[in-house]
Amino acid sequence: MPAMTRSPARLTRADLHATARLQVETPGEGLTDLTRELLAFLKEIRAETGMAFLFCRHTSASLTIQENADPDVRTDLLTALERLAPRSHPWVHDLEGPDDMPSHIRTLLSDSHLAIPVEEGRPLLGTWQAPYLIEHRTRPHRREIVLAFSGSGAAWS
Amino acid sequence: MPAMTRSPARLTRADLHATARLQVETPGEGLTDLTRELLAFLKEIRAETGMAFLFCRHTSASLTIQENADPDVRTDLLTALERLAPRSHPWVHDLEGPDDMPSHIRTLLSDSHLAIPVEEGRPLLGTWQAPYLIEHRTRPHRREIVLAFSGSGAAWS
Amino acid sequence: MPAMTRSPARLTRADLHATARLQVETPGEGLTDLTRELLAFLKEIRAETGMAFLFCRHTSASLTIQENADPDVRTDLLTALERLAPRSHPWVHDLEGPDDMPSHIRTLLSDSHLAIPVEEGRPLLGTWQAPYLIEHRTRPHRREIVLAFSGSGAAWS
Repeated sequence: MPAMTRSPARLTRADLHATARLQVETPGEGLTDLTRELLAFLKEIRAETGMAFLFCRHTSASLTIQENADPDVRTDLLTALERLAPRSHPWVHDLEGPDDMPSHIRTLLSDSHLAIPVEEGRPLLGTWQAPYLIEHRTRPHRREIVLAFSGSGAAWS
Repeated sequence: MPAMTRSPARLTRADLHATARLQVETPGEGLTDLTRELLAFLKEIRAETGMAFLFCRHTSASLTIQENADPDVRTDLLTALERLAPRSHPWVHDLEGPDDMPSHIRTLLSDSHLAIPVEEGRPLLGTWQAPYLIEHRTRPHRREIVLAFSGSGAAWS
Repeated sequence: MPAMTRSPARLTRADLHATARLQVETPGEGLTDLTRELLAFLKEIRAETGMAFLFCRHTSASLTIQENADPDVRTDLLTALERLAPRSHPWVHDLEGPDDMPSHIRTLLSDSHLAIPVEEGRPLLGTWQAPYLIEHRTRPHRREIVLAFSGSGAAWS
């Protein structure tokens, strides 16, 4: 049984919900760091303590939380996704090109939504964590992400 | 750096939480669209703005958000899951049949829970997105999904 | 079309948000059951109805909800992850050892965060479900999990 320690809980009155839409022009396959836009959103709404949510409104692009230090990690993640859902496989669904069905599978394997705790206005991401949009299609696309926050805020307190 | 545009945030007072249970009789391996039941739940509770949650109370069935247009996509998703977690592999855990352990792995690879933003009572799913229950076992099962909503509503305002 | 039945919704006034930090000393690669700490957190904050969230602040360890009955399931899950993201592959990112990049891929394939509905203070996990921390690195690590709850509670009602 691993040793565990739990800090005392902090309780807050929370009655704020906020949403915004983020448009991202992707350059084709690759990962786009969304940290800066998430921070700007939390600052704009004067968020204090609660949960931040990101939601990707597409089935051939998705979200993940990954290491933001070495760019080689992103290269290897794309290699891994190509190994797991290869574009060369004879998928039945090929109306939209050979990169479409693998994009749906890669979306299933990663995330359509993220939920990140927030304290004192800052997302509690680890030192090397960043939320990323993964564009799975080979060509550039315009993608829409919903940003949301539930919790306490200084907006009307 | 991809171009990004963020809409102004919308803020709401939110103090409603609602839950319901959804029983689904699955016909064996396959995907079941849960959109209609999610919409009916949000209408019943008079949800306005917030987050909708779905939670699957099983470890051999799971959830995903996927394309709802071409049924071939669902066929290919099942093919992909069989490639990633094959029933023919000699898994150690085989007490409950050769389709049980692959079901647990497929649950790990997809989602046990979904979080979908809601505005003006409507889930902000993309044009081609639908929430699905994936039955991973070959035989029919009775599955329970928890539907929940946190946000603002007309119930007592 | 599978048969579905939906229970009437239960509505609650919800204005509580609570967070705590959980430190876990992992013994190296393996799964650690977090159920007991989640229950203790919900009891401490006198949670009633809402959503519980777990968030892993690392990119080489992650979360999943899996069967808690037969320990062979955990063995097979680690085998499956090694098949999907093998340590022997010549990944580009290898500065931190051959088990680091596969850990990032395994984190992408599983979850960084969980969202579990709560009623009358109890998480609505299925009979065989437990939330687990998955340590992907071979050596022991100190990991931090954020526990959060949004909903109604007896703290100030």
